[in-house]
Amino acid sequence: MISPDVKLGQRVSIPQPDLVNLYGCEIGDGTKIGAFVEIQRGSSIGARCKISTHSFVCEGVTVEDEVFVGHGVMFTNDRFPRAARAGVMLEGGDWEVMQTVVRRGASVGSGATILPGIIIGVDAMVGAGAVVVSDVPDYAIVVGCPARVVGDVRTRDAQ
Amino acid sequence: MISPDVKLGQRVSIPQPDLVNLYGCEIGDGTKIGAFVEIQRGSSIGARCKISTHSFVCEGVTVEDEVFVGHGVMFTNDRFPRAARAGVMLEGGDWEVMQTVVRRGASVGSGATILPGIIIGVDAMVGAGAVVVSDVPDYAIVVGCPARVVGDVRTRDAQ
Amino acid sequence: MISPDVKLGQRVSIPQPDLVNLYGCEIGDGTKIGAFVEIQRGSSIGARCKISTHSFVCEGVTVEDEVFVGHGVMFTNDRFPRAARAGVMLEGGDWEVMQTVVRRGASVGSGATILPGIIIGVDAMVGAGAVVVSDVPDYAIVVGCPARVVGDVRTRDAQ
Repeated sequence: MISPDVKLGQRVSIPQPDLVNLYGCEIGDGTKIGAFVEIQRGSSIGARCKISTHSFVCEGVTVEDEVFVGHGVMFTNDRFPRAARAGVMLEGGDWEVMQTVVRRGASVGSGATILPGIIIGVDAMVGAGAVVVSDVPDYAIVVGCPARVVGDVRTRDAQ
Repeated sequence: MISPDVKLGQRVSIPQPDLVNLYGCEIGDGTKIGAFVEIQRGSSIGARCKISTHSFVCEGVTVEDEVFVGHGVMFTNDRFPRAARAGVMLEGGDWEVMQTVVRRGASVGSGATILPGIIIGVDAMVGAGAVVVSDVPDYAIVVGCPARVVGDVRTRDAQ
Repeated sequence: MISPDVKLGQRVSIPQPDLVNLYGCEIGDGTKIGAFVEIQRGSSIGARCKISTHSFVCEGVTVEDEVFVGHGVMFTNDRFPRAARAGVMLEGGDWEVMQTVVRRGASVGSGATILPGIIIGVDAMVGAGAVVVSDVPDYAIVVGCPARVVGDVRTRDAQ
């Protein structure tokens, strides 16, 4: 299910278009999107990214170029989500959408959860299963719940 | 895929009916259900709830009214799951289904995992990525793995 | 979506074939596979297993007989995943696929994340929501992030 209002770049690869749910978003050139992915209105994915199966990208998320989003990654945009207030369902516009940015070249490991309003830095690496509750510096490796810095990808790459 | 045996209330919103799997469950009035959600036989969802994408609600789970279930939330009902015993697949009825209740107005953050047999209290807030292994008191805010109480929504709401 | 190149055993149960994504893998006799599951090329599932909804089994994973894989379980095969290098998308073959084995009779709880290159021992029990970063001994019960041994299923079974 790819809504007609999705802005798809060149050579975007979506091998299972019937098993995704994309609407109102922008997808850059050459990006690959796996099965069971939802990307919401008001989000943006850069060029040459991988958005792996079972991941959810919500409104307010900007993913820059060449970012790896693993499997089952959950982004969020509301620090205090509620279904209803005073008996009335909350709709878009009823809460503040916090902005999240994943900078160029970063990787978000499978099963990670990203709290709202986070910046994940350039080339940073978020470990699988991490729960990210604060900004991740450029080049940092973070793991755990809550995620903490345990290394630097420049050192790791040099090993 | 919405099985004919699902009891749907009035004005239930399921924008992607081909991308959900609902069977043998009850869904209350005005509730919204996202893509890639499975709700099993023997579970019940109240009125004016949001069950967000990628979540799984199993047999034995009762979700009261106006509950927010985030994205990728996993409920469970078996403390010691096994596929087979003595070479024979286990079927429903071969294990004790523990009962979980999410009380009115509570929120369960995205990526949370709820162990079996849990009560999540009225208006309580389970943080994104939390692993809930014990009951959550009414109005409590819990986060982490295992989830621990870190605040009270009444104080937070008053801020 | 079950690709013609999947080797299906006898009496494999896939109640929602339109809501799975299986390709290039092998599935043993009597195994059950839930909705929203992806099983990739180059992986193998044994006989009489349960692969529950929302789980992802990647290349390099071998699941032996009678294994329970809960809901929303994420396997991984790359310790340092990237989307691209020097402006070019990485493809299969561009990284080392680490091998993971889940031994006969083991259970992996819902919401668990399994880091690459792990062995989960015979009859072992991985708790719901665990992040498994090192091998799990035969019969061990592990929980938490990172997962640590907290018990032995033989003692538990004897209770």
